[in-house]
Amino acid sequence: MISATDFSTKLHNLRQKLATLNLDAMLLTFLPDVRWLTKFSGSNGTLLLTRDNAWLFTDFRYQEQVKIEVEDAVPVITADGYLAEMKSGKFDFGNRVGFQADKLPFATVEKLKSELPAVEFVPVTMFCEEFVAIKAQDELEKMRKAVAITDKVFEKILDIISPKVTEREIAAEISYWNKRFGADKDSFDPIVASGARGAFPHARATDNFIENNALLVIDMGCVVDGYCSDQTRTVAVGKIDEEARKVYNLVLEAHLLGIHSAKAGMTGKELDGIVREFLAAHGYGEAFGHSLGHAVGLQVHELPIIGRKGEMQIPVGAVITIEPGVYLPGKFGVRIEDMVLITERGAEPLPKAPKALIEL
Amino acid sequence: MISATDFSTKLHNLRQKLATLNLDAMLLTFLPDVRWLTKFSGSNGTLLLTRDNAWLFTDFRYQEQVKIEVEDAVPVITADGYLAEMKSGKFDFGNRVGFQADKLPFATVEKLKSELPAVEFVPVTMFCEEFVAIKAQDELEKMRKAVAITDKVFEKILDIISPKVTEREIAAEISYWNKRFGADKDSFDPIVASGARGAFPHARATDNFIENNALLVIDMGCVVDGYCSDQTRTVAVGKIDEEARKVYNLVLEAHLLGIHSAKAGMTGKELDGIVREFLAAHGYGEAFGHSLGHAVGLQVHELPIIGRKGEMQIPVGAVITIEPGVYLPGKFGVRIEDMVLITERGAEPLPKAPKALIEL
Repeated sequence: MISATDFSTKLHNLRQKLATLNLDAMLLTFLPDVRWLTKFSGSNGTLLLTRDNAWLFTDFRYQEQVKIEVEDAVPVITADGYLAEMKSGKFDFGNRVGFQADKLPFATVEKLKSELPAVEFVPVTMFCEEFVAIKAQDELEKMRKAVAITDKVFEKILDIISPKVTEREIAAEISYWNKRFGADKDSFDPIVASGARGAFPHARATDNFIENNALLVIDMGCVVDGYCSDQTRTVAVGKIDEEARKVYNLVLEAHLLGIHSAKAGMTGKELDGIVREFLAAHGYGEAFGHSLGHAVGLQVHELPIIGRKGEMQIPVGAVITIEPGVYLPGKFGVRIEDMVLITERGAEPLPKAPKALIEL
Repeated sequence: MISATDFSTKLHNLRQKLATLNLDAMLLTFLPDVRWLTKFSGSNGTLLLTRDNAWLFTDFRYQEQVKIEVEDAVPVITADGYLAEMKSGKFDFGNRVGFQADKLPFATVEKLKSELPAVEFVPVTMFCEEFVAIKAQDELEKMRKAVAITDKVFEKILDIISPKVTEREIAAEISYWNKRFGADKDSFDPIVASGARGAFPHARATDNFIENNALLVIDMGCVVDGYCSDQTRTVAVGKIDEEARKVYNLVLEAHLLGIHSAKAGMTGKELDGIVREFLAAHGYGEAFGHSLGHAVGLQVHELPIIGRKGEMQIPVGAVITIEPGVYLPGKFGVRIEDMVLITERGAEPLPKAPKALIEL
């Protein structure tokens, strides 16, 4: 269904873009984009892409690693950085060079311009984003692994959750089991928010004990070979009241509506709007204060945004989250989130964690 | 010894800088700087500082949090972002406004200029850095807590290290105990590098079992209330050979030389040079491929850099790392790192973890 978007396909797409933009070269300085294209996972890497060449500038620390990870770009080990190399005359990159205008700091651009006055530096945005949004087979495999670990970690922590442990202890277990099950690290700080704290969508884990007879929101993910997972479940600890149960079921309906409505070619705004209207029709429009979701990949938040500002179309091969939430200040919050793969037939949820209310 | 550099002192210093630079206002967009000044810990915050006012723009998610955390700046909750607020006419910020040129993306600056054409936007670097380098009492307290947790975690994992566990399992324990002992999270991915992998200064933890009769490098840290720790120890697992022992003792000498040589007023380059010369005199100049250290605070790497490019003076009140290393490819690596507080009398190491070779 999705063709394996390998290096040569990616390169082909980007070189077409070079031609469209009438550029001789493009300077990719944003690490996740460099990694997406070349598989290089070091912390210092800049790619200079021309119609005929692709040079990857990094430093001595990555001398061995770059040889193992990168097949098709030519690694250049440099002590003085990519700008010094560009000035050296050893690399032919023409004189119209694009840069990532929404990533590169203003001062760096000024420096490029003053040190290479013969080059016309052209601000470019969205050079890679439309391609990055379409996951290749090898990327999907890594994301499926990350999601499978998150499912296992969720099962594990269900055994631990009780009013005798703190939010922070549960967060510690999440970080621990992420690594023990083979992840490189957390994809973000786990959110473990009990009772009224669940009404803060971005609550950090505190030293508070898990409340009894209350809802508990757990939002977590991990990183496998650079690729992220991101998943939320809300569970009941002890007995919850009718309002909490009603809102849980409504959010679950909204979540399933999001999954069933998601189609390739929609904009993020359209998909968000369907779920937002549903919650509004049930009187919870105001209580759903964030976007329905976002794409996921090497970054935990990528384009397209699935929200009111989401003008970009969702392509086949995108992996997005569907995460409606209802937040009632002073009372509780409910959020249910899956990562889903957009296929030609709709949206395929990647996680297996159950969604019917779990009562502990 | 170090005066408590509270909000009003910080503000006073920054306003003097406004005057020096002949600016009406400064736009602080770099989150660690915003947090440093205001204590606001949210993920979306921009500070507009004028001679008379300080407005902190954030969104509805942080409506409650900003009230609790921020005392002296005026919070502005906005759905449309700080630029829309600046255009609204509700805020008087004059017409010469500085921005953080080494942080703010080129495209954002272009947008500011085009949407506020009457304002002269002035690129500024190093607006806060010299002040950020001097830690206030409340900041030091948080850093001491982070270091104390790191000491405890190190003690804890000494019990776990054996050839029966993998590097990744030890990394998982580090992440777990960081949180269990009260940290918010890891300050960076723990480095757990056994045997020849220790020769890669930035090795990630793998699924390899800890080698017997080999050195093991552990570099780790945590975050307490935003402030980081960063600490390295190298331990022997089983029996190590004479070369490894000799290099360990040499790196320890280099580390202690660094601590004893550190004085306020030196540049990072000078301090780095002393230790670098010592290792070179013993034939390990080439084997010490990175900088001696760096400042630490809300970011794990801050200015001043303690290395060959470190032109900035080290002030009283700075917290820096002293972390010489010797890396012998195919054999092993040794690194010993403490965070030290620069006082008027020299350098005070913050950790208590022992430095004589630990043999497990």
